[in-house]
Amino acid sequence: MKYTFYLILFVSIFHFSALSQSNGGSIGTEWEVGYSQQKEEQPGEFYPAEIPGAVQLDYMKAKEKAPWYFNDNFRDYKFLEDKYWHYRTQFSRPDIPLDHHLYFVSRGIDYEFEIHINGEKIHYQEGMFTPVELVLDQYLQQENTLEVIIYPIPKAEGAPVSRRQAKNSVKPAVPYGWDWHPRLVPVGIWNNTYLEVAPATRIKKEKLDYQLSGDFDEVSLKYSFRVSDPEDIGYNWVLKDKNGKTIYQKQGSIGEKGEEEIESTLQDIHLWWPHDQGEPYLYTSVLEARSPEGTILDSVVRKVGFRKVELVMNEGAWAEPAIFPKTRSVPPFTLKINGRRIFGKGSNWVHPEVFYGKLDYQRYLEQLKLAKKANFNILRVWGGGIVNKESFFNICDSLGILVWQDFPLSCNPYPDDPHYLEILEQEATSIIHRVSKHPSLAFWCGGNELFNNWSGMTDQSLPIRSLNSLCYQLDPKTPFIPTAPIMGVGHGHYLFYDDQTGEEVFQLMERANKTAYTEFGMPGIAPVSTLKKIIPHDELFPPKRNTAWETHHAFGAWRNSSWLEIETLQRYFGEAGSLKEMVDNSQLLQAVGFKCIYEEARRQKPYCSMALNWCFNEPWPTAVNNSLVGYPNKIKPAFNAVSDACRPVLASGSFSKFTWSPGEELAIDCWILNDSPEKVDGGKVTVFAETGGERKKLHTWSFPGLEANSNYHGPVVHHTMPENMKKQVFRIILEVSGKRDMDSEYRLLYTP
Amino acid sequence: MKYTFYLILFVSIFHFSALSQSNGGSIGTEWEVGYSQQKEEQPGEFYPAEIPGAVQLDYMKAKEKAPWYFNDNFRDYKFLEDKYWHYRTQFSRPDIPLDHHLYFVSRGIDYEFEIHINGEKIHYQEGMFTPVELVLDQYLQQENTLEVIIYPIPKAEGAPVSRRQAKNSVKPAVPYGWDWHPRLVPVGIWNNTYLEVAPATRIKKEKLDYQLSGDFDEVSLKYSFRVSDPEDIGYNWVLKDKNGKTIYQKQGSIGEKGEEEIESTLQDIHLWWPHDQGEPYLYTSVLEARSPEGTILDSVVRKVGFRKVELVMNEGAWAEPAIFPKTRSVPPFTLKINGRRIFGKGSNWVHPEVFYGKLDYQRYLEQLKLAKKANFNILRVWGGGIVNKESFFNICDSLGILVWQDFPLSCNPYPDDPHYLEILEQEATSIIHRVSKHPSLAFWCGGNELFNNWSGMTDQSLPIRSLNSLCYQLDPKTPFIPTAPIMGVGHGHYLFYDDQTGEEVFQLMERANKTAYTEFGMPGIAPVSTLKKIIPHDELFPPKRNTAWETHHAFGAWRNSSWLEIETLQRYFGEAGSLKEMVDNSQLLQAVGFKCIYEEARRQKPYCSMALNWCFNEPWPTAVNNSLVGYPNKIKPAFNAVSDACRPVLASGSFSKFTWSPGEELAIDCWILNDSPEKVDGGKVTVFAETGGERKKLHTWSFPGLEANSNYHGPVVHHTMPENMKKQVFRIILEVSGKRDMDSEYRLLYTP
Repeated sequence: MKYTFYLILFVSIFHFSALSQSNGGSIGTEWEVGYSQQKEEQPGEFYPAEIPGAVQLDYMKAKEKAPWYFNDNFRDYKFLEDKYWHYRTQFSRPDIPLDHHLYFVSRGIDYEFEIHINGEKIHYQEGMFTPVELVLDQYLQQENTLEVIIYPIPKAEGAPVSRRQAKNSVKPAVPYGWDWHPRLVPVGIWNNTYLEVAPATRIKKEKLDYQLSGDFDEVSLKYSFRVSDPEDIGYNWVLKDKNGKTIYQKQGSIGEKGEEEIESTLQDIHLWWPHDQGEPYLYTSVLEARSPEGTILDSVVRKVGFRKVELVMNEGAWAEPAIFPKTRSVPPFTLKINGRRIFGKGSNWVHPEVFYGKLDYQRYLEQLKLAKKANFNILRVWGGGIVNKESFFNICDSLGILVWQDFPLSCNPYPDDPHYLEILEQEATSIIHRVSKHPSLAFWCGGNELFNNWSGMTDQSLPIRSLNSLCYQLDPKTPFIPTAPIMGVGHGHYLFYDDQTGEEVFQLMERANKTAYTEFGMPGIAPVSTLKKIIPHDELFPPKRNTAWETHHAFGAWRNSSWLEIETLQRYFGEAGSLKEMVDNSQLLQAVGFKCIYEEARRQKPYCSMALNWCFNEPWPTAVNNSLVGYPNKIKPAFNAVSDACRPVLASGSFSKFTWSPGEELAIDCWILNDSPEKVDGGKVTVFAETGGERKKLHTWSFPGLEANSNYHGPVVHHTMPENMKKQVFRIILEVSGKRDMDSEYRLLYTP
Repeated sequence: MKYTFYLILFVSIFHFSALSQSNGGSIGTEWEVGYSQQKEEQPGEFYPAEIPGAVQLDYMKAKEKAPWYFNDNFRDYKFLEDKYWHYRTQFSRPDIPLDHHLYFVSRGIDYEFEIHINGEKIHYQEGMFTPVELVLDQYLQQENTLEVIIYPIPKAEGAPVSRRQAKNSVKPAVPYGWDWHPRLVPVGIWNNTYLEVAPATRIKKEKLDYQLSGDFDEVSLKYSFRVSDPEDIGYNWVLKDKNGKTIYQKQGSIGEKGEEEIESTLQDIHLWWPHDQGEPYLYTSVLEARSPEGTILDSVVRKVGFRKVELVMNEGAWAEPAIFPKTRSVPPFTLKINGRRIFGKGSNWVHPEVFYGKLDYQRYLEQLKLAKKANFNILRVWGGGIVNKESFFNICDSLGILVWQDFPLSCNPYPDDPHYLEILEQEATSIIHRVSKHPSLAFWCGGNELFNNWSGMTDQSLPIRSLNSLCYQLDPKTPFIPTAPIMGVGHGHYLFYDDQTGEEVFQLMERANKTAYTEFGMPGIAPVSTLKKIIPHDELFPPKRNTAWETHHAFGAWRNSSWLEIETLQRYFGEAGSLKEMVDNSQLLQAVGFKCIYEEARRQKPYCSMALNWCFNEPWPTAVNNSLVGYPNKIKPAFNAVSDACRPVLASGSFSKFTWSPGEELAIDCWILNDSPEKVDGGKVTVFAETGGERKKLHTWSFPGLEANSNYHGPVVHHTMPENMKKQVFRIILEVSGKRDMDSEYRLLYTP
């Protein structure tokens, strides 16, 4: 096989963009669903089905169940895991004009299924990320029944009732149970699905490959597509700028083979940038297939952004290893976008609904707007969850948020078994084809924590070698990492205070020396309003084991005491007198801890290049979690602290610990942090300590002008803790004169 | 693309096995060669050419040059690098029977070339590892001239005159100059090349894929092949055991497509083992294509060995990392052959002739027999050199020596450039296809030290991603590592004593904690007889800079003082009085240092799984080098020391340093090492110290029976160094009663 710059394997696509968000037709739009014990058996009962959705939701609705997220109600649905689910819709034969077909189209059915029409099986598939397109014409009668029969959820034989059951399938592992996710495994038609009468001529493959010039102002395009039934068909391809102005157009007739390739070079291109580096500029690509009469038979409309993404060596990393015997240097982990090194600030995204079939543009938008508000420029889409629907990526493209995309492998020993590899290859091919079109895609990752002992996979595991190979073949310009963490990158810790080591987050981060921190947690209790929705009133306070607190991850989640970590709360604050007080204490530690990590990671730049906390959001209302945003969109105080810590430019202070006693000498290590692409003018910082409402000026210092994306290490300012005050939170404040948006504030604990 | 267990991409092969070692015909066997400045120009002069060989050798012979390896004579050939070389042979049109062709066949032409017949260009190729097969019939006249025109050696534009010039090509980097290789870059027809009249029906693709059962006594075969011009052609495939007994046979007629696939399952299979673990059992596969009359039109005969190779996690390695933030665990580096973990003992192989075109069965055999004699079970074929000819692998198959095969990339920033990637893919495909048939292949490696700062490549480099992808597609059952060292594996040190750190090899190995040591050097001067052949008499002693000592790597090679390291020799032994004394001292340090490393690596088992010194052999007579075997086959004392250290079972002693003073307390940390697949019975060890011819018994201790592949840590035995003796080498001896082949002896230095 010859490698040429533009040689990219094609895979089938569907003309989804044109029909994006729409159901696409009015045929067979009413669905119902029911379950049976055996595949051949008919359900005793059918309920109305929402498409897309999940069978459990339809069941709950039909049965008028109490909220599944209250107490341990979710357990009521466990028995549904092993059923066969029969979706069906009925429709009369529609008019099918000449050179048209009736199509059944689905962007995703979860997980293993058959499709039957009028009792005849016409399709079988394993895999929820590979779309389905079927021509139904030849099976039609006057009255028709289309059925989608979904198998019981996959469970690896002999595995315990845990994520291990997901180890032989390409279904996300998280719904099998996680330390923040209930055991509740959705199945069903989870993505847009419809019947439509449409022309036989259909755009089947469509790909824009491009190469930016060294100075990034010129782009060489190679636009290629394939059309089915191409006889006498013409095409029109237009590329428009954001104002709708055509910047390139080509028309022609499609040859016998149905494949076309357009090459061109465009000047003075606007680059796509993450929002904190520039404009996430998007062009619009419109491809139409036309009949000889000029009728548009099919079209693909989508946004296009031009950018170059690289993972380059972290500054200073080539100097290691320095002594013999020498091992290799760490892998590169600095994002370089359009030739510019950037510091990655973000979070681990989990799908924000247990029933991911319900995710839509609006749901994604409200969450992603929060991510931008947090000053995040990158989200890691964690491999325990789904690969999101198209609207997720469309929003990231337009908001200018980079996406690190894990494949759906997480914390399991995914096998070298031929069947698993076949399905993985099918699903990964579909995923790569779809997602690689988005400028927001930063890099691919084989999956979560696979090269650690709780997963047991290695570089020799064939699933990882297969994913690397596929990404290289289909999308060689996008970086690929086999898993996270890789060598030099750190995951954890997930505690403010570790009672095993006696170490606080402050000390841990000071000794840590990683190229990137791509997971670190800090538990915080949910808002009281959330707790009241999920925990029976009489269990609310004080929190106890074997109550809804535990089913909502307050006890025995990641470790015995997580995520409530009640001993840590007591260590710092004593016994809480009320639910509100306990929530406030927990949320304070979460905010302080997360702020510490993000700012310390930034201070470690350029050797450190990225900080992503665990985790951004959550798919159901937990009682305690590391999330910044509680379900559905409730920001915790930590959200604001992190948003502050991730401002492009700020004054920053580093501290050695949380608790300070009367007379103790507190040292404030002062910095100016600049992650922006702009220079920062010099200025003056005044440091204050505020205890018991009293503000004391400690020191004023000056900083020089800073280059783009560089830090300045200022002085260490000292403060002797006052005597004779009561236990309280005190504050250290850094005020930047004339640039108050750079001010920072730190909360610490005064303990007499 | 569907993955199935047996789905392996095929690539073209040639029926070399049948013609192995032979020229294959009598047409056009006389070649001559000459050079020109321009491609179109004819050489002013032609000399007889040896095929296979190198143009420099033909030139030297014709010009009756003095030995190129003497003094700095090799420099006389530098100007030949930039010439066009014209090989030619003349022949009359042969009889070509019906359904036959005249073929030009070459297994390798180095490096970029054209093939012309009667003035017409019929082939162009870049790449020395991809064979050529051309049908010449249509170009023939009564008298014919066949020309192979070789381009000047590839040199990366703007690169210094060093290995960097090789960075854009798939030609090995070592001849561009290394710290043990002169700047002398062979070009020419370097592998078997001939013209032959043969049937049009030819076996074009031939592959045996197999899967061993869990208990390794059953093998599922899938034998596939393709035949050109398959009309009315039958096949006969026979698999014979080592005694020539047929264990499987299938005959049939070949279908229109010319592709056949035979599946079968065989019981009670003999496994192939490395020689220290069992018998390297080889079967013989014979495939014949037959005419309807039964005439054999083509055949492929080759050896087949059944084994499973894995790289599995080193014992204890999953326990790391233990503290937060956690990075990944180290990659696996323990060889598991047929389900059995083995300790890899071996060396880095470099091709044993600068003019690798001269390598043949005999040359490989004499060297590989030495490797087996050294008790090595694995050789790393280092990526600075060539991928060896078939006979190398055939010998390794039959001697039971595993081969770690680097691709030909070493210490360079090989680029993401499309042209380089295209040639790399072509060459790697040819290499994988050929080499993956050999049971001796242990694993693939992307190349040497690519992820260190002297190379500057990373996991994101497309050449490495491409090699991983190709190996996965073409040979998924063989492990692949991207480079050496990988995380956890160590290269170096290359000194007995490092004056920068003040550390000796003893202390370095004690603190080292690697999963494998896959390069470690220890310089030793060549035998006096070799020195006399390469260094002018008046320069022989004492060695000085700017003499033939320097051109033969005694000075300014790896570092300023290497490889002679005269200060180290003086540090331990004072000024040498003669050449012989200096050589003895240097060879002693080499022997002691290498013995220390191999045995310490073995003591670190099972966390450590492999020890390969740098290097086994050398391609020309160096004055000083890390090699165990000097050119051409001269073993150094270190060879015997290493051979002792690599015995499957031995008593071993560990020491903290080399030099000991009167009255000092010497501690001997005693072990029994067992790498064999057999249990070892318990026994008794007596430890002696022998100084100035006086042997003193220090201690007798017992060891229990040892399991297969396990060590026993014995006592620490003490010895107070005697007073009042002269400076001398003294010995510590471990004698195992009744098992004298387990005895060990260590030399240390007594310094009053």
